[in-house]
Amino acid sequence: MKRLKIKEVLAGGQVGQQVLVKGWVRTKRGSKNVNFIALNDGSTINNLQVVADVEKFGESLLKDINTSASLAITGELVESQGSGQAVELNATEIKIYGKADPEKYPIQPKKHSLEFLRENAHLRFRTATFSAVFRIRHAMAFAIHNYFNSKGFVYLHTPIITGSDAEGAGQMFRVSTLPAVNPPMTEEGEINYAEDFFGRPTNLTVSGQLEGELGATALGEIYTFGPTFRAENSNTTRHLAEFWMIEPEMAFYELADNMDLAEEFLKYLIKYALDNCMDDLKFLSNRLQEEEKNKPADQRSMELIEKLQFVLANDFVRCTYTEAIDILLNSKPYKKNKFQFPVEWGIDLQSEHERYLVEKHFQKPVILINYPKDIKAFYMKQNDDGKTVAAMDVLFPQIGEIIGGSERESDYDKLMTRMTEMGIPAEEMWWYMDTRRYGTVPHAGFGLGFERFILFVTGMGNIRDVIAFPRTPKNAEF
Amino acid sequence: MKRLKIKEVLAGGQVGQQVLVKGWVRTKRGSKNVNFIALNDGSTINNLQVVADVEKFGESLLKDINTSASLAITGELVESQGSGQAVELNATEIKIYGKADPEKYPIQPKKHSLEFLRENAHLRFRTATFSAVFRIRHAMAFAIHNYFNSKGFVYLHTPIITGSDAEGAGQMFRVSTLPAVNPPMTEEGEINYAEDFFGRPTNLTVSGQLEGELGATALGEIYTFGPTFRAENSNTTRHLAEFWMIEPEMAFYELADNMDLAEEFLKYLIKYALDNCMDDLKFLSNRLQEEEKNKPADQRSMELIEKLQFVLANDFVRCTYTEAIDILLNSKPYKKNKFQFPVEWGIDLQSEHERYLVEKHFQKPVILINYPKDIKAFYMKQNDDGKTVAAMDVLFPQIGEIIGGSERESDYDKLMTRMTEMGIPAEEMWWYMDTRRYGTVPHAGFGLGFERFILFVTGMGNIRDVIAFPRTPKNAEF
Repeated sequence: MKRLKIKEVLAGGQVGQQVLVKGWVRTKRGSKNVNFIALNDGSTINNLQVVADVEKFGESLLKDINTSASLAITGELVESQGSGQAVELNATEIKIYGKADPEKYPIQPKKHSLEFLRENAHLRFRTATFSAVFRIRHAMAFAIHNYFNSKGFVYLHTPIITGSDAEGAGQMFRVSTLPAVNPPMTEEGEINYAEDFFGRPTNLTVSGQLEGELGATALGEIYTFGPTFRAENSNTTRHLAEFWMIEPEMAFYELADNMDLAEEFLKYLIKYALDNCMDDLKFLSNRLQEEEKNKPADQRSMELIEKLQFVLANDFVRCTYTEAIDILLNSKPYKKNKFQFPVEWGIDLQSEHERYLVEKHFQKPVILINYPKDIKAFYMKQNDDGKTVAAMDVLFPQIGEIIGGSERESDYDKLMTRMTEMGIPAEEMWWYMDTRRYGTVPHAGFGLGFERFILFVTGMGNIRDVIAFPRTPKNAEF
Repeated sequence: MKRLKIKEVLAGGQVGQQVLVKGWVRTKRGSKNVNFIALNDGSTINNLQVVADVEKFGESLLKDINTSASLAITGELVESQGSGQAVELNATEIKIYGKADPEKYPIQPKKHSLEFLRENAHLRFRTATFSAVFRIRHAMAFAIHNYFNSKGFVYLHTPIITGSDAEGAGQMFRVSTLPAVNPPMTEEGEINYAEDFFGRPTNLTVSGQLEGELGATALGEIYTFGPTFRAENSNTTRHLAEFWMIEPEMAFYELADNMDLAEEFLKYLIKYALDNCMDDLKFLSNRLQEEEKNKPADQRSMELIEKLQFVLANDFVRCTYTEAIDILLNSKPYKKNKFQFPVEWGIDLQSEHERYLVEKHFQKPVILINYPKDIKAFYMKQNDDGKTVAAMDVLFPQIGEIIGGSERESDYDKLMTRMTEMGIPAEEMWWYMDTRRYGTVPHAGFGLGFERFILFVTGMGNIRDVIAFPRTPKNAEF
């Protein structure tokens, strides 16, 4: 008999038939006469209720059916008499693949802290919360590929190991095969990188953007979706040393096109989640409400599904940085000294400022544009005012900046001047400069941190809980 | 006016209308009265022929329209009078975004060697060959996600930086933030990794399989698609230091299910290429025939599209390793001493042996199973004969092994015994052992090297030509 997945069985089409299911026990409860086994195989948040007659199977078999034991069960699918499920399986045959000693198996069916589950990241996929998170993460990754493919973008794998450290987007991890102790040295007393694997110092990439521009200025529209790395010693709920980033880059796009794409893209993803992940979202919404039920009402999050619908329902506000500073300077929290950080033209906006704009002032997602050039990267298009660049940040409720991007400076001379001002070694980036030297075009792009976006969609509070095996300072377990 | 992509314009729906296109010049030719500009924007291998009246636009504008100059052109789309294209564009307005000095731009419209283009990898996307390769690479990446998503697999991002070096699949790159010169040392005179970023030695992953098994034994079916690394000093046309790998891993799959999946998967991808990439495939087929036209007929490759159709049309032969050795021992090349490497039970098959089986003996793709345990990894399921493991290699014409996989050993005791025999430190892999300790299930998986597969689909001969920015010994440019 062909095994069916539980998601398929729960749809109910096989009522009255014999079916074979396989999975792991979530819980078992029962009476003297009958046991109820909640079986899950990862295909859905919902368990299949299996009814096992005690007399038929015997105590000695049933006593080994504990949480996380793995089973193959054949039985008749029937309409459920109890509440909570439409169908259930009357077991006729039960095979135990593997037991899970309840004295030793760490994740028993009781409330565990997220910290504890993080230490057991190899087993946390077996919990309802984490199976929901990782199914949603999958759905969002797929939706990203689907979106860009349907628009004719080319998925480009930009390099992970890079000899380029010119962007200066953050501290980098060194990659080497030289002996760590007593590496070969030059006569000048420096490491002899000529003997290293790549014949030069290399690091892990902090962004695929610069290489992405090379692809876009030939293939038209590309996107990256790969791991990126920051060796920052940040032990927060928002930082990972290894995370995944999506970076589309488009020839012939100006800033307004870039904004339109970012808004359409985010809405596509959120609609995809609502259309395809509702069971998991409902579970996570309940989890979040449960977690926050003891908080004062004004500190609770917006209900998860409502929050996602809120993003879908609203046009994103488009506002210049200069206008935003004015709004902040005229705001109640500024006047009442409630902001922790100062506000004046030229500052890098803090999360409290971004959230005020989104949650209090506009009450909509916001795209801020035209930032002061001195707080943005060298490659951003210089505006005619001489002070600002054609940057854009998309700000979301709760989370603040979710996308950062810009139109790129396509004028060779302006770019070169800015690089010189900022001390960026243009000669090492001859390949990047070539895109402006030969057939330069207006182009634009942005970056979306995948895990921060998954935090938003799942309502989870710690970024370590939305990536399978988080890498953070002093932690590379599994 | 909204810009249209050239792929759309060439479909011809806008004949008789004014259209706006943007792109890069591939070639320009012409007479005293009229210039013909072949414009490409990366959306298709085919160029749009633009007809520009010399008198209308003037010599001074037209002289700047050289290969790789970037243009925006408005004009009327008309049915083409000439041969070679169905439609052409009568230009009414031409804007030059960026010139490309023909004295300096390296990729002029003449034949360049692949080596030369590799040194200009930042610009080779602008050639017909490489735009075709990278569009096909994109299509195959998308097809991979589409295939697994439609089957309910979860895309899992396994870690890139890993503290685990137990698999021993190859030499690894070290990842560190300790100072390269004079790193902190312990009193015992060893590097003090407690002070390193992760508090332990870390490397770049060689495979996501072990972590993939953690996902599969909870979520059911997962796949990875991410970069993997080998610090092997192999300067060949088949090796990269950084490459992308696809590794599905499935709970409740035995060896036969694993074979079925691998065959269905490969056929799905190849059918997707034939259905969606025919223009690019035809171009690459012609390129290959051109490249090989001076070879003797018996050394030429099978025509590219025919080769792809050949894989689709045939059931893959399933054959044990032991049977394969018998076939080889009874083969003409063996008897005539034509094999370079020896043949006997226990050897690791060489490419010449694999190709004999596929191309001469069976004349079909072959799945070889049940290899000697001593030439395979510790985690493979031990067969009852005590000598072999439930490994499978999928062998393709020309390329040999394209997929390697196995059913995994799910029995805790057998796995532990084998690890002890092979000197694998099980205690460091407590998390891996836990999947066998708690609710173990039969499971299986395989790995597909993405670039080797792209070599097969595109007919390219050097793996450095199917990844955007290849990383190889002494080379990490761009």
